[in-house]
This record gives sequence, C-alpha cells and structure tokens, in this order.
Amino acid sequence: MKDSIGLVETHLVTFEGLFRLESDAVLEDITIAYETYGKLNEDRDNAILVCHALSGDAHASGFHDGDKKPGWWDIMIGPGKAFDTKKYFVICSNVIGGCKGASGPGSINPKTNKPYGLTFPVVTISDMVNAQKLLIDHLDINKIMSISGGSMGGMQALQWTISYPDIIMSCIPIATTSKHSALQIAFDEVGRQAIMADPGWEDGDYYENDLPFRGLSVARMIGHITYMSDTSMENKFGRALKKKEYGYDFTQEFEVEGYLRNRGDNFIQRFDANSYLYITKAMDYFDLQKEANLFEVFQPVKNTKFLVIAFSSDWLYPPYQSKEIVKACKMNGIDVTYCEISSDYGHDAFLIEYAEETKLITHFLEKVKNNKVHAEN
Amino acid sequence: MKDSIGLVETHLVTFEGLFRLESDAVLEDITIAYETYGKLNEDRDNAILVCHALSGDAHASGFHDGDKKPGWWDIMIGPGKAFDTKKYFVICSNVIGGCKGASGPGSINPKTNKPYGLTFPVVTISDMVNAQKLLIDHLDINKIMSISGGSMGGMQALQWTISYPDIIMSCIPIATTSKHSALQIAFDEVGRQAIMADPGWEDGDYYENDLPFRGLSVARMIGHITYMSDTSMENKFGRALKKKEYGYDFTQEFEVEGYLRNRGDNFIQRFDANSYLYITKAMDYFDLQKEANLFEVFQPVKNTKFLVIAFSSDWLYPPYQSKEIVKACKMNGIDVTYCEISSDYGHDAFLIEYAEETKLITHFLEKVKNNKVHAEN
Repeated sequence: MKDSIGLVETHLVTFEGLFRLESDAVLEDITIAYETYGKLNEDRDNAILVCHALSGDAHASGFHDGDKKPGWWDIMIGPGKAFDTKKYFVICSNVIGGCKGASGPGSINPKTNKPYGLTFPVVTISDMVNAQKLLIDHLDINKIMSISGGSMGGMQALQWTISYPDIIMSCIPIATTSKHSALQIAFDEVGRQAIMADPGWEDGDYYENDLPFRGLSVARMIGHITYMSDTSMENKFGRALKKKEYGYDFTQEFEVEGYLRNRGDNFIQRFDANSYLYITKAMDYFDLQKEANLFEVFQPVKNTKFLVIAFSSDWLYPPYQSKEIVKACKMNGIDVTYCEISSDYGHDAFLIEYAEETKLITHFLEKVKNNKVHAEN
Repeated sequence: MKDSIGLVETHLVTFEGLFRLESDAVLEDITIAYETYGKLNEDRDNAILVCHALSGDAHASGFHDGDKKPGWWDIMIGPGKAFDTKKYFVICSNVIGGCKGASGPGSINPKTNKPYGLTFPVVTISDMVNAQKLLIDHLDINKIMSISGGSMGGMQALQWTISYPDIIMSCIPIATTSKHSALQIAFDEVGRQAIMADPGWEDGDYYENDLPFRGLSVARMIGHITYMSDTSMENKFGRALKKKEYGYDFTQEFEVEGYLRNRGDNFIQRFDANSYLYITKAMDYFDLQKEANLFEVFQPVKNTKFLVIAFSSDWLYPPYQSKEIVKACKMNGIDVTYCEISSDYGHDAFLIEYAEETKLITHFLEKVKNNKVHAEN
C-alpha cells in the first residue's frame, strides 16, 4: 500500500451571478465543493481534474478528521499512486445537482428560504462541467494536464474535452460511454420510479418530513446489481446462506440479499433521494452524438491525448461503448490508447482494479508530461 | 401463421386431503388450474406437459371467450405448431403460490375465511411439481411423452425428471438453469423489496384495502429489463424520445421509460403482489445441486431424452447454465441434444424465437415418438 495523502478538507466556493443551464433555466450564485491534493507547480500546468460518479463527492482521497474510511478513489490518488500527488496537483470537485455541498435540490432557494426540491432545474453533464470550469478559473489554472473519471466521471471528462478542447492536455475516460443507452436509461428510470413510488417522496418536497428512505434504498440495490457481474456475484456470494438452512420465509436468507439490503441501508444515510433523481437524469440526457456523429463531435479535439479504459465484465458500460470513443478519436487522428482490462468485477472494476489502472495511467501521464516539455523546447 | 386451437377454457381441480410441502408445512385441499389442448390418444401416451414462467398461468394457448389476445405460448401450441395439438395432448397447469386459480396467498384460508396473505406457506419448485403430479394422476396419465417450459417453466421440467424419472419420456428445458445464481436471486430480492417497501403491502395483509400497486409495478419493471438485452433495447428504443425535445423534467421522456411504465401498469391489473413474492422465492430456492453434484442428481434419469435450448443474448439465464445441465446428462449417458439459438432478444427469446424453436422441437418430438414405437416393437 502506498502512502496516504493524510488529512484533507473539503472547500466550498460560491460563484456569484447568473449561471445559465443547457435547458436555458438560470441558477443564481451556484456553489460547488472541491478538494485538492498535491501542489500546483510554478507554471501552473500540473493540474489533474478527477470527476466523480453517481454517488461520489469531492472527497476523493485522504481522510477527513475522525473518518475511518478514506475518499472514494484514495487507492488511485496520493503520493506514489496513479495520480501521484508528489508530481501533480489533483483537484476533485463535486457536481451541481448533488447533495455533498454543491447546489442541488436540497439547497436552500434564496427566494423562498426553503429547499428547492423539484423546483431546482434539471441539470446536464454539460452543466456540471461548466460549473467545474468556474472552479478551474477560480484556481487560476489555464491548462489542465489531465482529466479523468469512471462511469459518470468519464462522461464529464469526455464533455470537458468537447466543451473546452484547448485547455485539456489529456483525458482518461474509464468504464464510460459517449451516450447513455436504452439499457442504462432503463435501470436509471426504474431507480427513479422506486423513489417516486415512496409516499415519503411527496413530489420531492420531503425535507421537513420523513425522507423517502425505502424507495432510495431499492434504487440503490438495483444500482449495486448493475455494478457487479454474474461472475463476481458468484464468487462473492454464490448461494451462501446467512443461516444454516432455508427458513422458508421472506427474511434475507441468502448472503447476496443481506449485502444488497446493507448497501441500501448505508446509502440512505448519506444521499439525498432528489439528488439521485437529478444525477441519474443528467446521465440519461448525456449524448455526445445528439447533434452530430461522434467523428464530427471529436473534430475540434486535436491536441488532447486519450487513454480509454474499459473492463471485460462491465455489462453496464460495456467495452464496445469505449471502443466507439476510440474509433471517433482515431478517425480524427487524435492520439488515443485503448486498454480493456480483463476483470470479473463488472462496472465496479474501475474502483477495484487499481494495480492495472495505476500502471497504465502512470506511464500515460509521464508521456503527457514529457511530450509537453518536448513541445516547449 | 398456423391455425389457432380456438376457444379454450380453464378448469379448476381440488385435491382433497393434506399436501405436505418441502418445508414440512401442510396445506389442506389444494386447488390448481389447468387447460388441455388436443386429444389424449387411446394408449394415453401422447401427453405433453407445458410449465409456465413467473408471470404465466394455465392459459397457454387459444382464446378465452371474448379475449383479443391468445394464451402466453399460443405461438408454440396448436394445430401444426411445435407442440402439435393434432398429434399431442398438451396440458398446461399453473403453479401453487400463484394467483390464477391455484392455491396461493390470495386464496381463502378455510380456517379464517380470509385470504392467507403471508400465512400461506412458502412453496418450492418441487412443491409445484408435486401438485402437478396430482393433476396428471387425476387425468389418469401414467407416462408423460414430453415436458417443457422456459425460465421457471424449465425449472419445473427439470424437477419433474428428477422427482419422477420413470414417467417422463422426454424433457425440453428452455432458457433455464439447474440452480438460481446470486445474480438471479439479487434481481428477485430487489423486486420483493420494492413490493415490501410499498406501505400498501401491509405485511401481505392488503386484500381488503388498497393494493401495493406501485411496488409491484417497480418489481415488474426491473423484471422486464432483465428479460431483454442491451441489443434488443437498442434496436427497439435506442434513445428515441416520446416528445420532440428534452423536457428537462421527470416525466417519461424516453420511449424505453414509457415502455417500462406501461409494462408495470399492465401487470398490476393481473397479478397479485404476494404471489410475486412467493413465486420468486420458489425460484430462488431452486437448486438441484443442493444435496449432491449435478452428475449424481441426474443418475436416476436414465430413459428421459433431453433437448436443452438456450439463447445467445440471454444474460439472465445465460447459455453456460444450460450447458451445465447438458454436461450432467452427458456424464450419465443420457440422450441429450443442446442447441443455442442465436438471438438478440435476451431472455424473452423463448417467447419470441418460435420459428427456430418449432423446428428443433418438432423433430425432437418425432424422434421421441418413433423411438417409443420402436422400443415397443
């Protein structure tokens, strides 16, 4: 195990003024949360932006005071790790629409002094990226050496390269897609329906009452199934029972049932049901091919190097979706490397297969860094 | 399109006395529903038993008076079809635990004159088969020429060959497994959790009040996702919108969302939420390998011929699970044919790919029939 970055803090920053969304709705004075690890160098050109997935937050690495568990990608960010904080200045920001410090449906609407609930406008991946751009400007960074993320984090990374092609030196989209498929939309929608079926949801206006815990828990359980694979479930649980014998009742008898319930129960302690609706909806809207084919979409992206990573058993974001990105890059003469990591862990692999990811990313970032030096000489 | 069997009727039969379940619980006077198509021949040896899946019933073919839609496997059962009613006497019975005429949680408990609800004992696939055996005896049939079914129907078919090896001439398990996997249990459990999370469920005691419609609808939506494939969803829906543009709200905007909601809404009109719990639980308990490995389990099955059918894109009951059955048969010298039909339709394929299924089954049944004649000469 490599060193930990140690104690870290989340910062909040509010950008005063109007923030126009892709829907044309306007938010006033948006806030986002972020953490940074490592040091920005003198040339201010060693910044790496890490983007989180559906249930993530700005706390990607290290420990908050008193916490036993580190940030969600601690295994990848720190001294000597893939995103080496001895060399790079790593930034992780959270997404608007979320519930971990950024403006979202649980935030107070200054006009009513009550939580927005469903009056919060629907946001898109592009909106999330535009909010992060305000942060990058705020940090006075003009070039981002690399941007990375898995799942929805990968969507943000891809959107960054399209929205701001000139400032992104390299991009590492992991276990992601250039557009949400019907299957991906379907799973998200069933999760949303589970939340909205909970009478506690009350059309999103529940903040002063009982929260829609049960619906959110079911949504999370559905999610967790899609993050694993048939093989990883077989290896981890098989048909193992919590008790010795069949109980012939409807308690959680199988280990896998207990696991799912446990994951659901943990999630409702830390996540807002409305944010689950908003963030899944943002993913469902994500479609880089909406107005042009992928080849055309990547045309402005000339100088960004790509390392595209997929996992063999990921059936939620299958490798073919990553290959579509690779093909569009190749057709534009973009410097792209594709790597499919053989893994049984399904979609979760992007959080687990750190050893292979670390090797791939370490060398890729070295190449990006050297190439930059070379270009400057 | 081949001929329809025409108008049919469902029959109910009650077996008086005690019926002991695998759990050792006892039911009194169980009822099951059944339909028959075609004629039993003089030798009473042309009977084919068809077993239904999770949401099926005894109405497998033809039309009930006034109905616009035929039975659930009409495409396979009728004059000139795979299960040719000009040659064979086809029987379809429903399963105990269900809600279509057989004894189940919605039946009236004679001791209380109220619906059983959760006081109905948990049943297993083996219990379902034992109840069907009473029907077969009632119909005075000593040999079953063939038994078939897809999904849970295939589990019943397999269980029949193990429980009553001497009377089953042939078995056609389709898109099924010899034991429910962790992934299969997981999806079932989330469906159950969705139902039990509905306050209308009231611990199963809801028959006189509002029914747990929303929970059951969510369970059904989850199911429908697992019955399709990434490819079939892409082909059928892709990212097509019901409206022209993104609405930036939480209505069903994508076609796939509308489809799922529609399927959920239809289901709640025709299915009992408690039966959904009981039948999924029976599937989760299904494990032919519980007490011995599959080779040993199939040892008593000497004279049954098998045609095992799986579908390439079925990720809920993947072909490897069918191959495990084939291997156990082969190791016992059982006459087994395996066929993996190439299809994009996922698990639903067993209800859709009738053309290929018909060819395979027609020839297989001919072989079974001829072989029997040959053996008798």
